Amino acid sequence: MEEFFVKTKRKFQVIDITPNVREIVERAATQEGLCCVFIPHSTAAVTVNENADPNIGEDLQDALAKLIPEGIWRHDRIDDNAAAHIKAAIIGPSEMVPVKNGTLLLGTWQSLMLVEFDGPRERKVIVQIR
Amino acid sequence: MEEFFVKTKRKFQVIDITPNVREIVERAATQEGLCCVFIPHSTAAVTVNENADPNIGEDLQDALAKLIPEGIWRHDRIDDNAAAHIKAAIIGPSEMVPVKNGTLLLGTWQSLMLVEFDGPRERKVIVQIR
Amino acid sequence: MEEFFVKTKRKFQVIDITPNVREIVERAATQEGLCCVFIPHSTAAVTVNENADPNIGEDLQDALAKLIPEGIWRHDRIDDNAAAHIKAAIIGPSEMVPVKNGTLLLGTWQSLMLVEFDGPRERKVIVQIR
Repeated sequence: MEEFFVKTKRKFQVIDITPNVREIVERAATQEGLCCVFIPHSTAAVTVNENADPNIGEDLQDALAKLIPEGIWRHDRIDDNAAAHIKAAIIGPSEMVPVKNGTLLLGTWQSLMLVEFDGPRERKVIVQIR
Repeated sequence: MEEFFVKTKRKFQVIDITPNVREIVERAATQEGLCCVFIPHSTAAVTVNENADPNIGEDLQDALAKLIPEGIWRHDRIDDNAAAHIKAAIIGPSEMVPVKNGTLLLGTWQSLMLVEFDGPRERKVIVQIR
Repeated sequence: MEEFFVKTKRKFQVIDITPNVREIVERAATQEGLCCVFIPHSTAAVTVNENADPNIGEDLQDALAKLIPEGIWRHDRIDDNAAAHIKAAIIGPSEMVPVKNGTLLLGTWQSLMLVEFDGPRERKVIVQIR
């Protein structure tokens, strides 16, 4: 198991973490298996999608912002970030990617992306290969 | 592999199952690996988020109820719970959590939560560690 | 690790891939473990839900189409399928299902379903058992 940290800079951000995860997978030298990427936070998440056009990450954030407006939830009376929690629960904290020949078996247009819903913060990413 | 049962009491409910899963993981004594929590139902799901404020679970249910209204879908003509199926497909039936030093590696503000969309029912939860 | 291909026929489609995955799992003869189903594409996804009534898949597509309208996103200026990317990120590219006694431990009303958001296309499905 390994971990690394990502500093997010804005409230809403999508950050390509494929290079970080790929380096861990290749160093582990597991020929075939599964790679779990886990975000131990409840206002950030991980997804897999295209990053060749970084607009897609911004579109995802815009879409979720329209669906889950800010400031109208019970938890906002305690800590003003309920929308971030709801979005993180929908996208989810983990992704599983197959490993083959010692490398991540992502599709041509797939990247692993940390999705920040309540930045800027320092976020931990845990990588476990099995 | 182990399983346990949860009796839900309301139509919409979010129940913290972390203690149940943690006990299974600690009894299994796997030092390092991955824990899969799987819900073998199609109108309930599992997610990971904060439960220190239980309002977050209620906010998640409210947000999904606004996005996926009841009674307007094809499946409602057969069995009046289409919205529950759609919500369960969005949240998903499984979560993967890393295991380290024989325990669940959840973040400080993370709990595993069974999400009931069509209760009250008895729900099975399957836990597999690898 | 094995893979198979599915030809989708419409722009929006939900295709039950349980028989394909079940055959791979039973041939692998792993008595107990986890089966990962991974879609190496960024405009299709995989989910688990009921297919006894195939309307549920169509309801899921309709619900997502209402929530994520077409043609209003940044990525649409480059490639006219931003909504497909956003939906695929929400549903996600992987599902984990427990394996017991050499077979998939799906619930009575659960099927594994490929969700096409930008068809018709040929889609690859990767199955890894651990």
